[in-house]
Formats: sequence, C-alpha cells, structure tokens
Amino acid sequence: MNKINIGILGCGIVGTGVARILIEKSDLLQSRTNALLNLKYVADLDTQTDRGILFEQGVLISDADIVLNDPEIDIVVETIGGQTAAKALAIKALEKGKHLVTANKALIASFGNELVKTARKNNVDLAFEASTGGCMPVIKTLRESLIGNRIESITGILNGTCNYILTKMSKQGCPFEAALKEAQAKGFAEADPFLDIEGGDTAHKLAIITALAYCMNINLKDIHVEGISSITPMDIEFAEGFGHAIKLLAISKNHSDTIEARVHPAMIPLSNPLSHVDGSMNAVTITGDATGQTMLYGHGAGMMPTASAVISDIADIARNIISGASRRVPILGCREASISPIPVLPINQVEICYYIRFSAADQPGVLSKISGILGNYGISIKTVHQKGRESKGSVPVVMLTHRAKEQSVQKALTEIAGLESILDKPVVIRIEDK
Amino acid sequence: MNKINIGILGCGIVGTGVARILIEKSDLLQSRTNALLNLKYVADLDTQTDRGILFEQGVLISDADIVLNDPEIDIVVETIGGQTAAKALAIKALEKGKHLVTANKALIASFGNELVKTARKNNVDLAFEASTGGCMPVIKTLRESLIGNRIESITGILNGTCNYILTKMSKQGCPFEAALKEAQAKGFAEADPFLDIEGGDTAHKLAIITALAYCMNINLKDIHVEGISSITPMDIEFAEGFGHAIKLLAISKNHSDTIEARVHPAMIPLSNPLSHVDGSMNAVTITGDATGQTMLYGHGAGMMPTASAVISDIADIARNIISGASRRVPILGCREASISPIPVLPINQVEICYYIRFSAADQPGVLSKISGILGNYGISIKTVHQKGRESKGSVPVVMLTHRAKEQSVQKALTEIAGLESILDKPVVIRIEDK
Repeated sequence: MNKINIGILGCGIVGTGVARILIEKSDLLQSRTNALLNLKYVADLDTQTDRGILFEQGVLISDADIVLNDPEIDIVVETIGGQTAAKALAIKALEKGKHLVTANKALIASFGNELVKTARKNNVDLAFEASTGGCMPVIKTLRESLIGNRIESITGILNGTCNYILTKMSKQGCPFEAALKEAQAKGFAEADPFLDIEGGDTAHKLAIITALAYCMNINLKDIHVEGISSITPMDIEFAEGFGHAIKLLAISKNHSDTIEARVHPAMIPLSNPLSHVDGSMNAVTITGDATGQTMLYGHGAGMMPTASAVISDIADIARNIISGASRRVPILGCREASISPIPVLPINQVEICYYIRFSAADQPGVLSKISGILGNYGISIKTVHQKGRESKGSVPVVMLTHRAKEQSVQKALTEIAGLESILDKPVVIRIEDK
Repeated sequence: MNKINIGILGCGIVGTGVARILIEKSDLLQSRTNALLNLKYVADLDTQTDRGILFEQGVLISDADIVLNDPEIDIVVETIGGQTAAKALAIKALEKGKHLVTANKALIASFGNELVKTARKNNVDLAFEASTGGCMPVIKTLRESLIGNRIESITGILNGTCNYILTKMSKQGCPFEAALKEAQAKGFAEADPFLDIEGGDTAHKLAIITALAYCMNINLKDIHVEGISSITPMDIEFAEGFGHAIKLLAISKNHSDTIEARVHPAMIPLSNPLSHVDGSMNAVTITGDATGQTMLYGHGAGMMPTASAVISDIADIARNIISGASRRVPILGCREASISPIPVLPINQVEICYYIRFSAADQPGVLSKISGILGNYGISIKTVHQKGRESKGSVPVVMLTHRAKEQSVQKALTEIAGLESILDKPVVIRIEDK
C-alpha cells in the first residue's frame, strides 16, 4: 500500500475538518485512492483546545517548521488563513519540495501568481479547490471538465453571508442592518463582516476563477467591487415586481481582447437559475461555447464542505504522486507559455441594463426632465414605474433602461441629482439579464 | 510537443461534435493539455454526407478496423450508439490496448462491468463522462471531487425529453400526448420515444452513477423503472397546489447494507432546487455526509454539450498518457478489491410519502371507506383535498400520506379500487420531500 504523509498547518475550523476526514475516513479514502493518506502532523500554536479528535501521540504539534523540515512529508495543507504568515509558510513549503493544498482565497487571489511560479520552479503541485465555492468543484470543472470550451462568462453567488442577508431581506422585508444582525447571531456572518458584505471576499474568488477560465494570470486589483450595504427592501420589492431577484454577483465576461470582471449587487430574472439560490448557499454558472450554461450549486463555506474540497485536492495530488504524475494538470489550467495578460475593461466602459430609482418631488414635469437628461446621454428607457405617493411629498420613480454605457449613466445621474425636484441620491442597480 | 492520436468510431451527431472541437480548437486544447490532440481517423459507414467539417485527406474512412489496428492510435472514441456493434468494437479497442472514451450510456449500463474488466486486464483507461448528464461533470465529481464523502443519496433529472414534456404540461396545462408531439416537432424527442418516456434512458444513467457513488458494480437490472406517460395535467395542477412540481427522477439512496435505486415520476417541493429545472435541462443533486447537498445543472444532451464531455475524457486520458499515469483513477472510482455487491431494496420495501388521487362517486361516506382501508394497512393521511364536482358525477379525492411502505400502499389501493364508489384506477405519485 502506498503511503502519503500529510501535514496540516493551522487547526482552526477547516483544518479540524480536514483532520477529521483523514482520520475517520481512512478506509474509504484508501479504497478510492489506493493509498494510505497518513496524517503525520497537525501544527497549531494552540495544542490545548479539545477539537473532538483523538490525535495519535506526536501528531498535534506547535511548530510548523517540524512539518516543513520533515523529508517524509509529501503534502502540506495550509489552513491558517490570513495572508502574512500563511504566505511565508506556503512559499517555504513549496521551496522544500512539498505539494501544497490551501483553502485560502485571500492568499491565492493576492499572491497566487508568486505561489504558482514557486510551485513550477520546485516542480510540485499547488491546489486550491476549497478557495472558491466551498465544496462545489468549480476549479476542477474549469481546469478539467470544460477544457474543450472557450469560456464565455462566469456568474456566481460566492458569498454565503451576503446571500443569507439578501434572502432574509427579500423574504421578510427587513432592512439590511437587521438582516446582518440576524446573520451574525446565527453564525452566518463574522463579527467584522466588512470583507463579506463589501464584496472583497467575492472578489478574491472571482479573481481566481477568472484566471482559470480565460488562461490569464490572477488579477485581483482590476476587479470592480461594490457590496450590498446600500441595498434596501424597497429596491428588492421593486425588483420582484419586475420578476427579478437581487443577488451579490461575481461576474466575468470574455471579450477576447478584454475581459469584464466585477462584483456588485445585480438584478437577475427569475428564469436565471441563480435567482433561486437562497440562504447561505452558493452557486456559479459557467457558460462555454460548447456546453452553453452549466451551474454548480452547494455549500460555499462551513467546516465539512470546505474540508471535503481540501480532501479532493489531497486525493488528486496523492493519485499524482502514486502514478509519478505530479504537475499533471497546469496549476492555472493552461501551460505557462499560453498564459497572456488580458486587460480588464474599466467599469465605466461596461455596457449593461440598469435599474434606477429616483426620489422625486411630487410635482408635474419631473419625469420629463429626468427622461430628457437620460436621452441626452443616449440612454433609452425600457420601463417607467411610479409608485403611490410617500408621506413626505416624494415619490419613487423607477426606471429600467436598455443597454447603456456605465460612464453615460453616471454622468446623467450626476446631472439629474442636481435637479431641484430630485430629493435624494438616485439608487442604481445593474441588471444581468442573461 | 506531445502528440496523441485519436480515432473516432461513428460520425453521427456526437461524433461530429467531437471531431469539430478537436479540429477547430486544436490550439486551445494544446494550451491546456500541452499535447497535440490529433484526429487521425473518423470511421463511419457513411463517408459521403457533408458534416460541415473539412477533414484532411484520409481521415474520414469507412473501416473501423483500420482505427483499431493502427498502432499509432492512442485513444478510441466510440460514438456509434446502440449496443451490439458498439460493444464488439469497444471490447476490441480495449484488447488492442487502446484507451476508450464512450458517450454510450446503454453500453456502459448494460455491459460496463465486462468493459471495466477488459480495460483493467489491458491496463488502459475507460472513460464515459458523456454517458450521464451531458456536459455536467457528474462522473468526475463522484470519482474525484466528492472523494472524502460517504455519498448518501443522488437525485437527478437525467432525461431532457421527459423534462421538456413535463414542463410543457405544467406551463400550458396540455395533456401528455400533445406535449410529446410538440417535443418531437422541436427535436427534443425521438420518433420512437419509448426509451426516453418510459424511463429506460434515465435508468441507464442511474445505474452508472449509482455504481460510482457507492463503490459497487453496475447493476441495471435491479432498478425499478416507471415512465411519465400516465401523468396528467390534473395531477400536475394538484401538485402545484401543494407547492410541488412533478419530475421524472432518478433516485438512489445509500442504506449501507442495501441501496435504493429507482426511476419514476415524483413530486418534489419547490424548495428543492430540482423543482426549478425546466425544459430540456438536466440536473443532479448529490448528497454527501461532508458536503451536504450539491447540485450540477446543464444541458444533458445535444451535439456540442455531449461532445464537450467527451473532450474532457480525451483530455484526461491525454494528460495521463503524457505523464505516464494511465489508470490513475480507478474506472468505477474505487479499487477493484473494495467493490462489493450491495443488494438493491425491492420497490415494495421502499418507505416514502405518497400522493394518491381517487376518482370517487359523488356520494357520502366514500372518504370514510377510503381512509378506513388505508388505516388498516397502517398508512396515515397527512392531507385530504376534495376538488369541486366534475361533470360525470365523479369527484377527484386527493390524499397525501405520511411515510408508508410501498407494499402496504399497493395492497390498500387494490382493495380501495374494488369499492363500488371508486370509478377509476387510483393514481399514485411518490413524493420525495428531501
């Protein structure tokens, strides 16, 4: 029986889940990989907390260097999280010739290109299925299953916290702050939810899958990012009236010479399967020129779903080691020579349909002024909806536009916001109608 | 540059799609596999029909044996369809030491165990991603991604024809025959639709993924199969009134010492993501003990989606050949020694909830008689719904039961059908409420 020695760095939630599967499902994993996946070390500064696992003597240690310096260790699993320490240890592991598995999206999104380079130089595998979409096999699907496709676009709900909050707001009509508090109380949101609700976490994941989809390096910095904190129950209600749901989406589109890559709340029609993805669930649709639209759906976070994805990477690498086939699949899905820099279209150049809500004074002629300015910027209106009067003499005027350039919309809105009869900053939500 | 020589047997719809991708996307495939996937032969008795592809001189031939006897051929792609000729050629290809890729679910479901044995003996790969779920990577997900899970159940919509017909019936209230005719007119159903609408095609696919999920050999013969031809718009309407959709489902469940494996129309709640899978789309949910419920969704048939799945198998095998790692993943996902026979629970032993519709004479006391008989067989009723009178003096009486054993339900129904006040054979639809 082949024996593969594994060392886990960081025994928090995900690390504990991985250790549990390796220990408790040793037989199952053996029957599927034909190898003993031996958990030799789990390194964590905290060796005292009871994690509900009976580690054998000498497995749980506090010094990560013991793992990295042990020549018997084949695979290092980084489940520390964060960036600084994780990066240093990851680089060191690769330089020591260890195959590396990580669930750390911030690490891969920010330093992935450097890690890929280091892995290539040391001829080892680097795997990160758990970094994006939890247990959904989005990385494997892009690198292996859709290999005969030119990928045309990816659209994903990749943050369970945001999706939980938006679902709550939609089902119960409660405001953002109340939904966030409930998410925190139920453990679906961190005490500091900034990275989730402002879209940063989703952007990390989008950066990773965009690189894999279009044969390019990882490019986090050019992704346009907006979060969900300004979404109101009123806009969700209007969206539903138009047969749409509002979701925080990760979107990338392939225009060959440029790509779009953006994270923001968007209205999607109920005919889009993503519109039915509720609560903390994640999903991603990938459109290929041969396959058309495919979708993966599942738990995007949590101890065991994430651990399941880490285990799939460990098994892949173990199968590679056993058959002498390390680096069998290129880390970014494409051989190095074929990876080209593709510029990201600036957000103001994107063309899309818009939902715009104005708070207008309840006076005659307002609609004509608004539509006149929009017309001047070449923005044509598809639907206008005016709701009953509100208490303070303002009425919400809602418009859906045909496709328009973001730049034109922003300029028109600045001009419209300057009108005396416009009482509040207009609300803009992009519409993804495909 | 590595060169992998490929021969396609059968240039119908799928074969043509595969040839097209290999020829038109040679560069893309090279950049991803680091190999030239060279289409050396396409063998088909018909070498005259214009397939819209410009084959190089000598590629399109009529004699399959030329492919099988050419020592340069690495991978044979079987896209002939059917069973007899396909099986003979598949066995011969494996015996000649060729890796084999097939899209043929009938072949794998019926003779898969023999083919697996032959592939093992000749130390070659056998791959069949396209056999189940078209472009959805369900085989790869089971064999590679969910490897750390005990698979608990699989539920799938795996036949686009049936799903198209049921969707039509639901959206337009039309009867089965009319929906079938429209499906045939639009090319979603074959001229002879028996294999689709009676569930046989779905059973082929279920047999394949059930073997992969639970580490067992392929067992088609013990799958219970019912089709959709007896479903009426009235039952769909009732289902919708209870917040359910009716779908033709492939279901398998893991009880460790036995499994369930059955194909039949079923009612599923709208909270089940499968209920929103409409038209000719396919989807499959896989529940693992670590991942919980995951779902794959996509086109289950059609030239290019199916070809995309075949290409993913070709690429996998090419990557294996290049890195000297053939047979890197066991064909059925489990090493031979770990594959055990697991008996399939007979359908009459299955416990489940039921929708039952009676056509009852519009007389007092009928409900009491029906519920009395159900009670005698230990079947408890959850909901009773009686619709307004119909023209001929009969009223539909609809009941949803709590969990009951199929055997008891069938016995009770036989007894109830004998009542004078019951005017027609009761309609029974199983409910999958998880």
